[in-house]
Amino acid sequence: MPDPSNSKKKAVVVGAGLVGALWTVFLARRGYQVDLYERRSDMRAAGYVGGRSINLAMSVRGWAAIDKAGIREKIEKVAIAMPGRMMHSETGELSYQPYGKADEAIYSVSRGGLNLELLHIAGTFPDVNFYFDHRCVDLDLQNPTITFEDTTTGLLKTVEAPLIFGADGAFSAVRYALQRTDRFNYTQQYIEHGYKELTIPPAPGGKHRIDPNALHIWPRGNFMLIALPNADGSFTCTLFLPFEGAVSFEKLTTDVAVRDFFDRYFSDAVPHMPTLIDDFWGNPTASLVTTKCDPWHWQNRILLIGDAAHAIVPFYGQGMNAGFEDCTILDTMYDEYNGDWSGIIPDFSRQRKPDGDAILELALRNFIEMRDLVGDPMFLLRKKIAAWLHEEYPDFIPVYSMVSFTNIPYHVALHEHDRQNELFREILALPDIEANWNGPAVRECFERWMAESAGL
Amino acid sequence: MPDPSNSKKKAVVVGAGLVGALWTVFLARRGYQVDLYERRSDMRAAGYVGGRSINLAMSVRGWAAIDKAGIREKIEKVAIAMPGRMMHSETGELSYQPYGKADEAIYSVSRGGLNLELLHIAGTFPDVNFYFDHRCVDLDLQNPTITFEDTTTGLLKTVEAPLIFGADGAFSAVRYALQRTDRFNYTQQYIEHGYKELTIPPAPGGKHRIDPNALHIWPRGNFMLIALPNADGSFTCTLFLPFEGAVSFEKLTTDVAVRDFFDRYFSDAVPHMPTLIDDFWGNPTASLVTTKCDPWHWQNRILLIGDAAHAIVPFYGQGMNAGFEDCTILDTMYDEYNGDWSGIIPDFSRQRKPDGDAILELALRNFIEMRDLVGDPMFLLRKKIAAWLHEEYPDFIPVYSMVSFTNIPYHVALHEHDRQNELFREILALPDIEANWNGPAVRECFERWMAESAGL
Repeated sequence: MPDPSNSKKKAVVVGAGLVGALWTVFLARRGYQVDLYERRSDMRAAGYVGGRSINLAMSVRGWAAIDKAGIREKIEKVAIAMPGRMMHSETGELSYQPYGKADEAIYSVSRGGLNLELLHIAGTFPDVNFYFDHRCVDLDLQNPTITFEDTTTGLLKTVEAPLIFGADGAFSAVRYALQRTDRFNYTQQYIEHGYKELTIPPAPGGKHRIDPNALHIWPRGNFMLIALPNADGSFTCTLFLPFEGAVSFEKLTTDVAVRDFFDRYFSDAVPHMPTLIDDFWGNPTASLVTTKCDPWHWQNRILLIGDAAHAIVPFYGQGMNAGFEDCTILDTMYDEYNGDWSGIIPDFSRQRKPDGDAILELALRNFIEMRDLVGDPMFLLRKKIAAWLHEEYPDFIPVYSMVSFTNIPYHVALHEHDRQNELFREILALPDIEANWNGPAVRECFERWMAESAGL
Repeated sequence: MPDPSNSKKKAVVVGAGLVGALWTVFLARRGYQVDLYERRSDMRAAGYVGGRSINLAMSVRGWAAIDKAGIREKIEKVAIAMPGRMMHSETGELSYQPYGKADEAIYSVSRGGLNLELLHIAGTFPDVNFYFDHRCVDLDLQNPTITFEDTTTGLLKTVEAPLIFGADGAFSAVRYALQRTDRFNYTQQYIEHGYKELTIPPAPGGKHRIDPNALHIWPRGNFMLIALPNADGSFTCTLFLPFEGAVSFEKLTTDVAVRDFFDRYFSDAVPHMPTLIDDFWGNPTASLVTTKCDPWHWQNRILLIGDAAHAIVPFYGQGMNAGFEDCTILDTMYDEYNGDWSGIIPDFSRQRKPDGDAILELALRNFIEMRDLVGDPMFLLRKKIAAWLHEEYPDFIPVYSMVSFTNIPYHVALHEHDRQNELFREILALPDIEANWNGPAVRECFERWMAESAGL
């Protein structure tokens, strides 16, 4: 039996970021009247403010949602394919590693550009109402209302909201309201590293200064610099570095210290960064948080999605992809439940939660891979063997490919990560593995492992 | 150099529960003017409201603080010694297990009675000002002010507060304010069990119906009933039971179901509980939360203490003891730092945090011990051997004794718990250990383990 709130076909979405804007499009396509509230000003008028964005890497889960929303064409034009990683050693040597098979890539997109596009698309639906400069200040859990402060006037506004989607990010006000309810589990955990956005501007003439069809990484053990291409010929760079310690943000207090640090560790990047010092002081040093909560919903009428439910570190490039996949799954469940939110909301919350936990863990693990392991010859050998096995045995999917190039649930990928780690511990211990990396001993080891897992 | 706030000798304490009231006494003895704010009404006038209290078991850490505050005499008169556990089997058989050596005991005290006494003592200092019915609603982190709502009038009141102690419990408003600050780590985690307070009233004539000098436990695997004696001849009982599942609160929906459940599992207690059904429906089913945060302070002027910093489950009887020990340690540091809070606050927060984490973990582990292991013959044998070793080798302190009868830091006790688990895995695997529990093989095994740990 459909929920009463459903017959009205009205929904409130809190947060007009990537997930909130995309989910609004999904709801509008289903015939919903959507009231979309956002704390910030309308970026369509104000222009996007960068400075702490981290570029996004759209992969298959993101595209699946974009496809399902019927808006691929509009998004595709701002995306740049990155079929592999380009590693920069301390002495400036380059080594390239494909992410997957020949036709597979992740796609660099600008957070601001994508968000703007999604808002424009949402705005084409007459039943979508935008309320920018509206900060969520209270949820009434007994009555179906929600209260916003209009930050331009300071006035409070309480509205009926029988159906609320909290897509308001890692510091979700909707989630803070749920946090005070009995038996609501919640964790916010910051990592030891902060990040700072920097830039490689276009070369004179507008071309990219370094290869645009790669995600560039300067892996340095406990820290790293990355660069993702933009359509305008620039790169958005991000430095990830501990806040405290021997090599850390707290040590970089003068122009000289910053210059010395970059000259020492990122010497081949420095010539491409003419605005380095200005960017370094002009952009904030931001922190990186993961959040977990349980449940993701309140009764049958409030649901957290995207970062509000599962904020993760950016190292797998899956934050936006995971949030977009929330939309895909919800939209599929909408059909399965014939639009009955009283079924969809608790079921989504229960089913999807293990995937949120899994991608949180995978993203933390991938930080170690990116900043440290990608510089390790044994790790590169593992990647080479994995790619070869992936070609030879179609049933074998390396974990990175599973996460980035399939829609297999994240919790399966996390389990597979543990299993593949066992496999490669064995394979890399084989005698003379460097020379015999695709020899019969590797096949034998692999086939035994596959047979074991078939028996599981 | 003393902090400027120090020269004024003024402090705000938020929360007039056990820790807030005791800490107020400590500050007042140091000559501080203390403004003590409490959300609830003045229990000295209103009378203590029970129903979800869980009796307290005061052990050495609690007494140490009481001693240091110079108020032992007043507290001692309401405490009942419990030198051991009395286990009740399903068929009503009793077995007794001392907690420590002959002169050692934990002490049953009423939360309400103790709280009242502490408030009376705080009230004897002319520079202590009480503000009951004041709910903390905001902290200004930029300016040293704090805002309360007078819940009797609804009016807001903002006061200067250069030095704030947040002793406002597991759902601390002071901590919620800090939660929004950058890089503040926070976790709240509920366990699967709820609890309900019940009662064994005095026998006609005012005597205790069962042995008053023990903590009574009805261990039933995944759940349990406990009873702690009160000075008036009654016992406060607490049922700990999962919220959901085959045997759970959700199944106990009728008088018949409650009666059947108690008859089946706690048959020897039922005759002593004439008000069982009324108590069961009259008292709430409450949840049990643990909270962790990091750091426990804000700059040099806001400090969380007690449950606000480290809320734990009640199964080691250490919640109040840990909070009182916070006061002891702070008072000692006050001398070490010559009253300089800008040194004390960050140093306490850093030093004490591992102990908060450790007692949280120990309390979770002790739940398994209480509800399950105390019914296991091998566990009882382990306890017997540990007690014997404790007598024979003065350097060996069983973990329960370390936690309850010493002031050794909790983090040392947690480490020792892991080590002693290893020791007893070996000892209990010795041939015919039931008969040879104090034989030469046990001595040999133990002495090897002690020698290894001396080498650590």
